[in-house]
Amino acid sequence: MNRGLFITFEGPDGAGKSTQIENLRNYLDDLGLDSVFTREPGGTDLSENIRDILLDPANKGMTSRAEALLYAASRAELVEKVIQPALDQNKIVVCDRYIDSSLAYQGYGRELGALKVFGINQFATQDLMPALTIMLMLDPEKGRARLDQDNLDRLESEDLEFHKKVLQGFAYVAEEYAYRMKVVDAGMSREEIWDEIKPAVDWKLKKRGFI
Amino acid sequence: MNRGLFITFEGPDGAGKSTQIENLRNYLDDLGLDSVFTREPGGTDLSENIRDILLDPANKGMTSRAEALLYAASRAELVEKVIQPALDQNKIVVCDRYIDSSLAYQGYGRELGALKVFGINQFATQDLMPALTIMLMLDPEKGRARLDQDNLDRLESEDLEFHKKVLQGFAYVAEEYAYRMKVVDAGMSREEIWDEIKPAVDWKLKKRGFI
Repeated sequence: MNRGLFITFEGPDGAGKSTQIENLRNYLDDLGLDSVFTREPGGTDLSENIRDILLDPANKGMTSRAEALLYAASRAELVEKVIQPALDQNKIVVCDRYIDSSLAYQGYGRELGALKVFGINQFATQDLMPALTIMLMLDPEKGRARLDQDNLDRLESEDLEFHKKVLQGFAYVAEEYAYRMKVVDAGMSREEIWDEIKPAVDWKLKKRGFI
Repeated sequence: MNRGLFITFEGPDGAGKSTQIENLRNYLDDLGLDSVFTREPGGTDLSENIRDILLDPANKGMTSRAEALLYAASRAELVEKVIQPALDQNKIVVCDRYIDSSLAYQGYGRELGALKVFGINQFATQDLMPALTIMLMLDPEKGRARLDQDNLDRLESEDLEFHKKVLQGFAYVAEEYAYRMKVVDAGMSREEIWDEIKPAVDWKLKKRGFI
């Protein structure tokens, strides 16, 4: 039956998304499944241009609304050019951050309101939502301690208060969209985290007839 | 009483907006009124960066939704950093293109739907609408004939069919927001056009107590 499978990874900076995404990539390769891995913001030429603007510390004075709209623009491009075409070809698409990050960072962190940010993202994504979201939850203090303090991008370098609001946002998202969430405590070891992620992925792969 | 006055110029490419904006600038200067002239997309450092992306012919493959969201991002920045602060200082702000261009170009020209495009722009502008819009209407054939054919930007170089839809969009906007519109036939001479614009501006200046 399968018509592709869209999986996203979410959570605060430093929660260990990259490691687990790499685990998933190896796992899908071992299963011989056709997959596309991408990231936000970015993933297309235009989106990478927008990414440069968004993460450049020189743009620290950017308004919150412009920030939210730039993320949405990057996402619109990624959905229409990369994610949806791959799903139409029955592939598994894994994206590092997606709409939930906007709800958490711009809706909560910037206090623009999650519903307003959701509205512009419905427009951007043409209502494409992931079938499964792996949410790696971590205290902001712990997440920041894991980052390279000399190479923080524009958002990573925001203060602790901002990152606490972002985490509140992720908690809201996890509850609001519980039907597609696998929430994992990122304070555990890498192996323990993967042991929680794998069954959730297997379940979706089975339901869609991939395995 | 006045709390600033926000005037926009709209209409298809080649309708002669620049000439009339210059007329208005000279007129307000002669009256000794404090004014700010700006343009879209652009008007701030970030917005000019976005402008470069939007008008670069190399980005011809950009999705319509990304285009609409980039214009909205540029507008969000311009409103919060330039237009609203100037209005708060009781200045007259004149902007070359604003929300109506998005409704016409993206809502109609790109067929995204005017209401959806209006929605993301309400978010972008925090509901700031102009008090007066000078709409210069012109047949797309005539407008294109006036442009330098060797130096067309990404939108100017779209085909005639696109520009006809854009003109339909401007006609919709002129009717939908009639309360703030001064529609002028741009096929007249420069002097005749200004003779239509001036009384509309004077009326608003008087109502706000500027003259």
